[in-house]
Amino acid sequence: MRIPLDQQSPVPLYRQIERYLRQSILAGKLAAETRLPATRQLAQDLGVSRITVNNAYAELESDGLIYTVEGSGAYVAPANPLPASNREPAIVWPLWQLEAQARAESSPETSSERIPQRPRHPHPIAFTGVGDPRHFPVHDFYKALKTVLHRDGIAALVYGGFDGGYRPLRETITHMLASQGIQAHPDQVLITAGSQQALALVCQVLLKPGDVVLVESPTYNVALDLFRSLALKIIGVPLDENGLQIQGLEMLLQQHHPRLLYTIPNFQNPSGSCLSGIRRRQLIALADRYNVPILEDDFAGDLRYDGRTQPAIKALDPGGRAIYTGTFSKMLMPGLRVGFLVAEGPIFGRLVEAKRVNDLATSNLIQRTLDEYVTIGRYQAHLRRSCRIYRQRRDAMLAAIRRYLPSDVHVNPPKGGLFLWLRLPEKVSSLALLPLAAEEGVEYAPGSRFFPNPVDGEGFLRLNFATQTPEEIEEGIRRLGMALRRLITGSHG
Amino acid sequence: MRIPLDQQSPVPLYRQIERYLRQSILAGKLAAETRLPATRQLAQDLGVSRITVNNAYAELESDGLIYTVEGSGAYVAPANPLPASNREPAIVWPLWQLEAQARAESSPETSSERIPQRPRHPHPIAFTGVGDPRHFPVHDFYKALKTVLHRDGIAALVYGGFDGGYRPLRETITHMLASQGIQAHPDQVLITAGSQQALALVCQVLLKPGDVVLVESPTYNVALDLFRSLALKIIGVPLDENGLQIQGLEMLLQQHHPRLLYTIPNFQNPSGSCLSGIRRRQLIALADRYNVPILEDDFAGDLRYDGRTQPAIKALDPGGRAIYTGTFSKMLMPGLRVGFLVAEGPIFGRLVEAKRVNDLATSNLIQRTLDEYVTIGRYQAHLRRSCRIYRQRRDAMLAAIRRYLPSDVHVNPPKGGLFLWLRLPEKVSSLALLPLAAEEGVEYAPGSRFFPNPVDGEGFLRLNFATQTPEEIEEGIRRLGMALRRLITGSHG
Repeated sequence: MRIPLDQQSPVPLYRQIERYLRQSILAGKLAAETRLPATRQLAQDLGVSRITVNNAYAELESDGLIYTVEGSGAYVAPANPLPASNREPAIVWPLWQLEAQARAESSPETSSERIPQRPRHPHPIAFTGVGDPRHFPVHDFYKALKTVLHRDGIAALVYGGFDGGYRPLRETITHMLASQGIQAHPDQVLITAGSQQALALVCQVLLKPGDVVLVESPTYNVALDLFRSLALKIIGVPLDENGLQIQGLEMLLQQHHPRLLYTIPNFQNPSGSCLSGIRRRQLIALADRYNVPILEDDFAGDLRYDGRTQPAIKALDPGGRAIYTGTFSKMLMPGLRVGFLVAEGPIFGRLVEAKRVNDLATSNLIQRTLDEYVTIGRYQAHLRRSCRIYRQRRDAMLAAIRRYLPSDVHVNPPKGGLFLWLRLPEKVSSLALLPLAAEEGVEYAPGSRFFPNPVDGEGFLRLNFATQTPEEIEEGIRRLGMALRRLITGSHG
Repeated sequence: MRIPLDQQSPVPLYRQIERYLRQSILAGKLAAETRLPATRQLAQDLGVSRITVNNAYAELESDGLIYTVEGSGAYVAPANPLPASNREPAIVWPLWQLEAQARAESSPETSSERIPQRPRHPHPIAFTGVGDPRHFPVHDFYKALKTVLHRDGIAALVYGGFDGGYRPLRETITHMLASQGIQAHPDQVLITAGSQQALALVCQVLLKPGDVVLVESPTYNVALDLFRSLALKIIGVPLDENGLQIQGLEMLLQQHHPRLLYTIPNFQNPSGSCLSGIRRRQLIALADRYNVPILEDDFAGDLRYDGRTQPAIKALDPGGRAIYTGTFSKMLMPGLRVGFLVAEGPIFGRLVEAKRVNDLATSNLIQRTLDEYVTIGRYQAHLRRSCRIYRQRRDAMLAAIRRYLPSDVHVNPPKGGLFLWLRLPEKVSSLALLPLAAEEGVEYAPGSRFFPNPVDGEGFLRLNFATQTPEEIEEGIRRLGMALRRLITGSHG
């Protein structure tokens, strides 16, 4: 018997043999009661070990497709021994499907936690998500939408510009950025499907599998998932309350020759820390010396509740060193999926081309509506209101933590953003806490999601303080305290 | 003098030297009148040829940054010899920017044509684009939008489902597909940002740089641009009026071991041909035998004006062999940016994950509005109306071609879709015709855009017959005839 085998394939040889025989049996090419070759003979014919053939036969036997007779050999079983209603129609996946599966299974875990099925709380309080949807300006947004459809009609529903997006929105963004000290020209602004797409496009243009990317450790979990999906080598730079540590960074730059440095300088996700002004200047200088592009993710720079604004890294850029990305999602409505990036130099045209081949353009209607909404001044007003509300909620959560959590739970009060980052008492795992918290009725993001090496994050968890009212926050943290005490005293079961 | 050089970089060594010296001069590290090392000495110090150093110095001299004195050597020029107002602030791009540029320049041309600047016609007629925006159902769409915002409120503006998109829309799509013979489950449908993103996600999951992709030759130009941007090796399969030629295909499968076969079986873009029923069956069998995934792009399968529908390749798939993609863009409003793909087997989960890391999700509001619009039956009505209108326009264009173009212009009347594909008289180039056509006031897509090897397409051009009224079509084709006669008789200039 000749079975085509691919020695290069990530699909194990025994699976390839088993798949071939399964297909032949199901297709009727190997009739019932046909005697299969002896394992020794088939192993010799195929140039594989006898164990490989044995494994293939064992899989087929356990699925009832073949049976073995002691001392005689293996035979094809009579067709369809079970009533048809009990069986799924048997699909034999093509080899490329199995390869895709094998690659997915061999890649590092993207989320190391699995939440066991426990009774769900009837009214859980979730400290996850991005902002409080109850404060989304739905009515104002709807008015802007109506204005655009009446004003622009069909023009709002054809493709937008392929050269970077809807021009007036790009101009509006440069005005918003000017208030943060970034002098950008509309020609340097590319509209993206949220800042997540900005990250993906930068990776696509600058990186190839195996390249090294430096990230803060911890960092934004979906950025990690993106880097993993592209088979990049992720190296974490340690953080402190002033952002990423420059000294550690320089060593890593020398050691790893990274092709990208990804940083969230303001109200970092998840740690809440801000990169100090002096470190921002050092960062630009180092990136220049070591020829590393900086990707600056400013997902929540506008949401500042205390202290002074630091200049964006992009504002310190002498030209073409940093790529800046921002989004409207966190402050308005995430369902819009509009973000942007700012870049100059030869890279900009390549990012525009990458956007075009990836999805042609971002929804023209949504771009125009957003521009209408921001232009008429509602965006700034909404932002001021959000800051007032979220500051209160941050303070409510910090107070509740002091009241309800053990004193050896550590948190650095952030000056803005959306997140509190908790370090649990020693040897307490946020993954072990997760099912107990769910039972008590509170949800959070376990720390392991945010580290290049997930086990480094077991002692941490991230709370979003912006999505719940002060009353809900107090109740949620009380529940978290209960779950934590149950875990520590071991009274869970 | 020590200048750090990267021998591996795609940026030529002379450019690296020139860039380093330019930066040092502009930063004041090399003061005016400083004598630069002799070229022979610097070449020896850096281990490069003297020509390399000479080239670097020549660039700097032509920019006025250095000057040479015969028999003495090269000196740094006095700063800023021109008045400041005449000069752009000099930005020295980092090396990684130059590398990005070098890679872009060394990649194959994505559009080989350049339209020379000629006087523009005041009222050009464009046979480009995707559908006639004047027939977009703006009013009905707006009503659906209003319904969704009133019904769903905030729920329409938060992130949609990360597991494939808005569930009711996925169910609606399975009902639409069932009418075309495709039995899909909503769990096998992934909502994408237009079908372009479906193509990009499939590439991202299945392919790596250097992999071979088989395409019809000619094929959809932005698919070619995508494949080029991913550094895939593109091999064209010849087409005839019954779609891609199966005999040629089998040879190419044996020869190139492709990792993907991309096909547009219905009203192919740009040729308008339909893959015959028997070839569809042969295609699935071949893909199975050679372990190649099929990506079936059905961008306009619904727009049939004559003849019988063939089953989708996906409808013939015994399981997991083909990935199907469709879009609402061509029939409704391209500015919506909503498409979908259908896949089963292990690959589906990987496509969902690729979508998540690329842009999290497609606009929830647009997904819900589209579902509302399609569900209430308006989509089918709009489609019937579009087919009636576009059939008329196809016939009008074919008649105008017979009337106004030379008889040795060849066209196969398509049974549906949006495009006529014209073969020009021998030795007439559609690129040479382009500026004359622009002068006469008619626009088309030159054939070179659609071929893996652009020069193969010079004798062809693509006309979209759906975007203009019969009167505009007649006038546009008359103008095309004028331009063509001017080109053939040589009376242009």
